[in-house]
Amino acid sequence: MANSKWEYVKNFEQPDNLLPNTWIVVRLDGRGFTKFANKYAFEKPNDRAALDLMNEAAKLVMTDIPELIIAYGVSDEYSFVFHKTCNLFERREGKLVTTIVSTFTSYYIFLWSKYFPNKPLSPPLPSFDGRAVCYPSVSNLRDYMSWRQADCHINNLYNTTFWALILQGGMDNYQADQALLGTVSSQKNEILFSQFGINYNNEPEINKKGSVIFRDYELVEPGSHNAAAEAEDLAEPVPQSKTQAEKEKKKRAKAKVVIEHLDIIKDDFWDRRPWILSNKPGKTPKEG
Amino acid sequence: MANSKWEYVKNFEQPDNLLPNTWIVVRLDGRGFTKFANKYAFEKPNDRAALDLMNEAAKLVMTDIPELIIAYGVSDEYSFVFHKTCNLFERREGKLVTTIVSTFTSYYIFLWSKYFPNKPLSPPLPSFDGRAVCYPSVSNLRDYMSWRQADCHINNLYNTTFWALILQGGMDNYQADQALLGTVSSQKNEILFSQFGINYNNEPEINKKGSVIFRDYELVEPGSHNAAAEAEDLAEPVPQSKTQAEKEKKKRAKAKVVIEHLDIIKDDFWDRRPWILSNKPGKTPKEG
Amino acid sequence: MANSKWEYVKNFEQPDNLLPNTWIVVRLDGRGFTKFANKYAFEKPNDRAALDLMNEAAKLVMTDIPELIIAYGVSDEYSFVFHKTCNLFERREGKLVTTIVSTFTSYYIFLWSKYFPNKPLSPPLPSFDGRAVCYPSVSNLRDYMSWRQADCHINNLYNTTFWALILQGGMDNYQADQALLGTVSSQKNEILFSQFGINYNNEPEINKKGSVIFRDYELVEPGSHNAAAEAEDLAEPVPQSKTQAEKEKKKRAKAKVVIEHLDIIKDDFWDRRPWILSNKPGKTPKEG
Amino acid sequence: MANSKWEYVKNFEQPDNLLPNTWIVVRLDGRGFTKFANKYAFEKPNDRAALDLMNEAAKLVMTDIPELIIAYGVSDEYSFVFHKTCNLFERREGKLVTTIVSTFTSYYIFLWSKYFPNKPLSPPLPSFDGRAVCYPSVSNLRDYMSWRQADCHINNLYNTTFWALILQGGMDNYQADQALLGTVSSQKNEILFSQFGINYNNEPEINKKGSVIFRDYELVEPGSHNAAAEAEDLAEPVPQSKTQAEKEKKKRAKAKVVIEHLDIIKDDFWDRRPWILSNKPGKTPKEG
Repeated sequence: MANSKWEYVKNFEQPDNLLPNTWIVVRLDGRGFTKFANKYAFEKPNDRAALDLMNEAAKLVMTDIPELIIAYGVSDEYSFVFHKTCNLFERREGKLVTTIVSTFTSYYIFLWSKYFPNKPLSPPLPSFDGRAVCYPSVSNLRDYMSWRQADCHINNLYNTTFWALILQGGMDNYQADQALLGTVSSQKNEILFSQFGINYNNEPEINKKGSVIFRDYELVEPGSHNAAAEAEDLAEPVPQSKTQAEKEKKKRAKAKVVIEHLDIIKDDFWDRRPWILSNKPGKTPKEG
Repeated sequence: MANSKWEYVKNFEQPDNLLPNTWIVVRLDGRGFTKFANKYAFEKPNDRAALDLMNEAAKLVMTDIPELIIAYGVSDEYSFVFHKTCNLFERREGKLVTTIVSTFTSYYIFLWSKYFPNKPLSPPLPSFDGRAVCYPSVSNLRDYMSWRQADCHINNLYNTTFWALILQGGMDNYQADQALLGTVSSQKNEILFSQFGINYNNEPEINKKGSVIFRDYELVEPGSHNAAAEAEDLAEPVPQSKTQAEKEKKKRAKAKVVIEHLDIIKDDFWDRRPWILSNKPGKTPKEG
Repeated sequence: MANSKWEYVKNFEQPDNLLPNTWIVVRLDGRGFTKFANKYAFEKPNDRAALDLMNEAAKLVMTDIPELIIAYGVSDEYSFVFHKTCNLFERREGKLVTTIVSTFTSYYIFLWSKYFPNKPLSPPLPSFDGRAVCYPSVSNLRDYMSWRQADCHINNLYNTTFWALILQGGMDNYQADQALLGTVSSQKNEILFSQFGINYNNEPEINKKGSVIFRDYELVEPGSHNAAAEAEDLAEPVPQSKTQAEKEKKKRAKAKVVIEHLDIIKDDFWDRRPWILSNKPGKTPKEG
Repeated sequence: MANSKWEYVKNFEQPDNLLPNTWIVVRLDGRGFTKFANKYAFEKPNDRAALDLMNEAAKLVMTDIPELIIAYGVSDEYSFVFHKTCNLFERREGKLVTTIVSTFTSYYIFLWSKYFPNKPLSPPLPSFDGRAVCYPSVSNLRDYMSWRQADCHINNLYNTTFWALILQGGMDNYQADQALLGTVSSQKNEILFSQFGINYNNEPEINKKGSVIFRDYELVEPGSHNAAAEAEDLAEPVPQSKTQAEKEKKKRAKAKVVIEHLDIIKDDFWDRRPWILSNKPGKTPKEG
């Protein structure tokens, strides 16, 4: 080949396969979204159309990449989880992260006009960066998910109060910041209620809990499965029969991918949906 | 903080800063573009609109990220090069790669309708994966660029002949493959010329050479600069005065980003554009 | 400082902290030990003094580095295991591996004359290389240990038969190799027994099972502890009180480090010694 | 194989090949050598026997591993440099580092009794940790070497003055520390000269400059070679003829490995010994 004398440069590529038997979380974040939100006049503290756009893009990523078991989003960030037995792209970090980031970006731009019909995009366009993190145990993974959802709650309570002080209370940003300095949750709740008649508990679930996306099957009785233990048992690579694998793949493809706003910190969410951690498709729910 | 007990999961994030003083190449590739090209009936062997779309997206990436010094594209792949002194995102691999992949994807989707007004996109959408590779020396970097351009030439000569055999010669894919098995360049040139009256040399430069994108300044006399040596001398971090840095930044922002189809294997391209390897902006060319 | 202008070279050091919450195995191997064994006329197939030297060196490594929970050795290799909660050297791979390799080498050379009083060392001296591997789950770790012990068995059965054919059967290396080609375990057992009157089961345990080193406490009833599950529960960093940590440290320091030749593939070994996986010191055994 | 069901654990081993075309520095450091120096009553501020032992061990490492081009040592640390074209162990970091650390440790223990005949070693024994760092350019490598030698100078001047204040001036550690707080080089020189009649310039070169080890050939005229440029030209892998490689190997094996105490910061050292950076053996010097 004419290019053979240069081909040695391929040797500079470094392998980046992630440690086997660990849960892979790929989290993406909007780049410069504060500025971006201002440019397109996103509503404060939460712009519903912007959240719905994030969610639909994420749902389509989940649909395109069936190896994903769950995704969790809040604000301009989204976390996608690969099962610890996943071997997509031989677990090459770069491939996994860029595929998700690119697919998400693609849908985000494509769907923009559906959610913002009157706000055409113009350069510089929105974009996202991303990273992968490995978690060795179910506990670590669930703690990661809890961390993101707790963060959602903390930020949303702050932002709800902050923007109430500004939009309804007439403060400027500095004054609102000062008013909230050092306050704990109960005090923010109190400000919202006493000054603005807002009961934080009645705020939309999507704002308080963020969004969780997963394949939907029939819920099971809590306690009837031990998905975490089942998952740990998958430590060794158990060769699955091809028929079985094919059957599961079909079931997974048929399953409805849903967007919910549920508590994912407590056990209940996971106990009733053992298929998320076990990666074994559940029972397809009966249509109503 | 309420989420402090879960925050330990941040410790699982691994640093990924790339080795200092090395040229960083980020290459992205279309995912499943053979299928994608069929879906949108791209012309064979080269669809000019598809190439122009790649090029404009890449040009906008270069414009958005001034730390990039050059980009080279062919078919559904694009390589972007950061100067070896670049410290963007502290050289974190994940940030660099995902930012480029996401920005490129964003523009690709956004610009699609401009180049394919009659072919609206529908899911699954185009997406790209990417990776970063470090090259320690100017020679390595130039060998990388030469490798990609030589590959462009080899593939394009093959594809041009292959599709001539099919589209003009009436062969099917298998027959065309067989006809070309084991042929060298001169034989493919001969087939093109004797059977189809095609002089490969007259094929469009964009197909034969691919596309190179860079900031344009006034060309210098070859031999008047030694950019490679200058670049090696930048091994140590030389603290630049803020005024100087600011001045260069402005010059860079004013420079026109151009798309050309030039030979980047020979020295001439680099000798006449010393600013690419030295990262010192050249003289702004006079308008005609 | 006079050296400040060169200090930037420290930035080229790359972090190498191993993923938290994973079991770290450091395995070292003798470099060129076939040649080395010949130079010092090691007995075939197993030189007891050489094995005892390996074992004492490994035991002293275990004693010097209390963060190690178990070690397993066979022939010229030794595997040392850090508990998954271990934070020694902030889990920096280079520090962990080189410390173990260097400490082991140090004792090996130091103790040489004790085991080989009549064979003084001369350059080139024995040395060892090493590597670290992370295992996310107890199953993975136990499978690693089983793999090494199964390997010990396979190699020892082969070597025992091979050297019987040579030393007692009068074959040369090539003939012995040919005689064993394609034989399974039962056939090797049969050769040993019928041709040489050797019952493989009566071979020394150290040769058949290798050597396992651990801190010794009072054995517990199998089934009374679930160490593996306990270990999984340690996923989150549970801050231990200083008093408790100090107490455990003292207990660990007082514990006797023992070298045994036991089956570590079956559950029994682990069930009766829950302290190995739980990292909580057991009961100090009563002196006889 | 009986162990095949466990063999999957090998997949958890991560590749660690270092970036090609970069200079590899492996630096090792004594572990806890302050305490160790006290245990064996090393002379302050420099124990000549201890330095000579370090140097002989390092020289033997250089001799055993001909791929090393230079080594530099000071106090209880030693840096070993592989040429950037070196492909030993496929540039696997773990192999390179542990081999050097283990070989060095081996010689250190072995030679101990030669340098300290009256101070037999006893556990815990001396050991060393190590790490590898890659440097892309000759400038970076030389800056690394300069950094270490400048550090040697700074520390030695400090220690010489500190111990003069204690051993000759009758101060305790705290007083000596206080006396030197904030002093610059000239002030330490002044203290040495005026208070103790010590002219720092007359101190032994080994203390002021550290030790540099390399293969010795006939010195060349400065300016007659450009080794740095030659080294950069080796960016691409130039396949060497086997005869040529064999010839160079023999020359290298015949070359005398020397320990010197020279300035390696200035150009002169490198200019007169072009073989160090070019990796092409020089002319064997005539015997006197």
